[in-house]
Amino acid sequence: MKIVAENIEITNRVIEKALAEMDPGPVKAMAKQCEAGGADIIDINPGPLTRDGEKKMTFLVRTIQDSVSLPLSIDTSNPMAMAAGLKACKNKPVINGFSLEPAKVERILPLAREFDCDIIGFLVHTNGMVPSNANERLELAVQLFTAYNEMGLEPERLIIDPVLAPLMWEDGSAQAVELINVIKMLPDLLGFPVRTVVGISNLTSGKGIKEKKLLLEEVYLSMLAAAGLDMVLLNMFHQRTVSVVRACNAITNRRIFSWEDI
Amino acid sequence: MKIVAENIEITNRVIEKALAEMDPGPVKAMAKQCEAGGADIIDINPGPLTRDGEKKMTFLVRTIQDSVSLPLSIDTSNPMAMAAGLKACKNKPVINGFSLEPAKVERILPLAREFDCDIIGFLVHTNGMVPSNANERLELAVQLFTAYNEMGLEPERLIIDPVLAPLMWEDGSAQAVELINVIKMLPDLLGFPVRTVVGISNLTSGKGIKEKKLLLEEVYLSMLAAAGLDMVLLNMFHQRTVSVVRACNAITNRRIFSWEDI
Repeated sequence: MKIVAENIEITNRVIEKALAEMDPGPVKAMAKQCEAGGADIIDINPGPLTRDGEKKMTFLVRTIQDSVSLPLSIDTSNPMAMAAGLKACKNKPVINGFSLEPAKVERILPLAREFDCDIIGFLVHTNGMVPSNANERLELAVQLFTAYNEMGLEPERLIIDPVLAPLMWEDGSAQAVELINVIKMLPDLLGFPVRTVVGISNLTSGKGIKEKKLLLEEVYLSMLAAAGLDMVLLNMFHQRTVSVVRACNAITNRRIFSWEDI
Repeated sequence: MKIVAENIEITNRVIEKALAEMDPGPVKAMAKQCEAGGADIIDINPGPLTRDGEKKMTFLVRTIQDSVSLPLSIDTSNPMAMAAGLKACKNKPVINGFSLEPAKVERILPLAREFDCDIIGFLVHTNGMVPSNANERLELAVQLFTAYNEMGLEPERLIIDPVLAPLMWEDGSAQAVELINVIKMLPDLLGFPVRTVVGISNLTSGKGIKEKKLLLEEVYLSMLAAAGLDMVLLNMFHQRTVSVVRACNAITNRRIFSWEDI
């Protein structure tokens, strides 16, 4: 399982301020921390970027590339900013991401062809709503893959995010169990070893004690790892969660076990 | 998943000394700690009890029952001591356990009928060797269940321990992944919702840093929980592992999530 750092995001006040002021220092520092913490990919999530989107995304990509050499995941709903970010990437980036929402199919998905790169597809309805059970998720996966195929893209470039529902929802624990099975079933359903990703913090969104939230995320991430999850978006300051990913990999990688791996 | 405390065991020096001196104090204290730590069942493992087996097992059962009201699991290869321990139990005990080894089938398994109680069956060969892959484990499960059935026992009383192989073995991580599938497949294979148990510390037996060992055990236990594991034998002093079990249960129990459960 690869780790995607979620720290470069607009809801982080340090990043918000740095972006408003176009100040590279804090962005570079955060990118370095993500790399040192064990990230494989850095997600750049500056929100919808309603003003100066292209300029701001280009600034972020260039600044982070000045600091670290990790591949980047470009995460915005603004297609112009997305294109500008992808254009500025030195390494092959990941587009994060599209869904069956018409605006995403029409304006984000084509960028995967234009830039010949991996793209994350979210299993949400055309109106953006999170599906309420495994069957809906599997149906959405088929529809999403159909839309993806119609764009003439290579199947291997698709990464599916089945979208975690918070445990605190009335049916949260039932959905959590179902989602494990969805991740297991997707490769057979789509007929190729499709990769999967989740944003693990979604599991515990809402009120709650931080320590309990992290425990739940670590336990659930281990369950998803056994089901074959390929990537996880997480906060690199949660270093125990990073250790959990390493332990998951040591168990599931089918290599000879080594204490050095964890 | 239920927690079986493994602390009352002969390899624990406090227990070894207390048993040699027939001193109830330390045994009672340990039982109370297990109860306070969240145990559902207390395993009593005084070894093979080559001398005064019946007397010593009876002493342990009575002493622990004087201290706590939890059900007990009687864990010895000595059939006489096993019978004495079962006889002394106030609550319905668990026999831990039998296997296809002839001495176990002939002298331990009949006690499950005599005392009408749950019994753990280990998936090891007739010579006591641990199986080397999933197919061997599944074959042993069928043979074990056949021997169990021939004794005229109720299927629901059987609990299977598929026997964890240490990760440090050459094929340890491959076996760990296979064992997850064995636990998932056993109910379908045997045709009823057979319960399963593992001794989680087996995963990391051998040399290693304690913190890394516990991390691996917690991660793997979460994976097994998602596969449907029903019981785990663990050291109650590993309170983080106990929290992991609670978090697993909160996710997999399909009840409405509550922070109170973890």
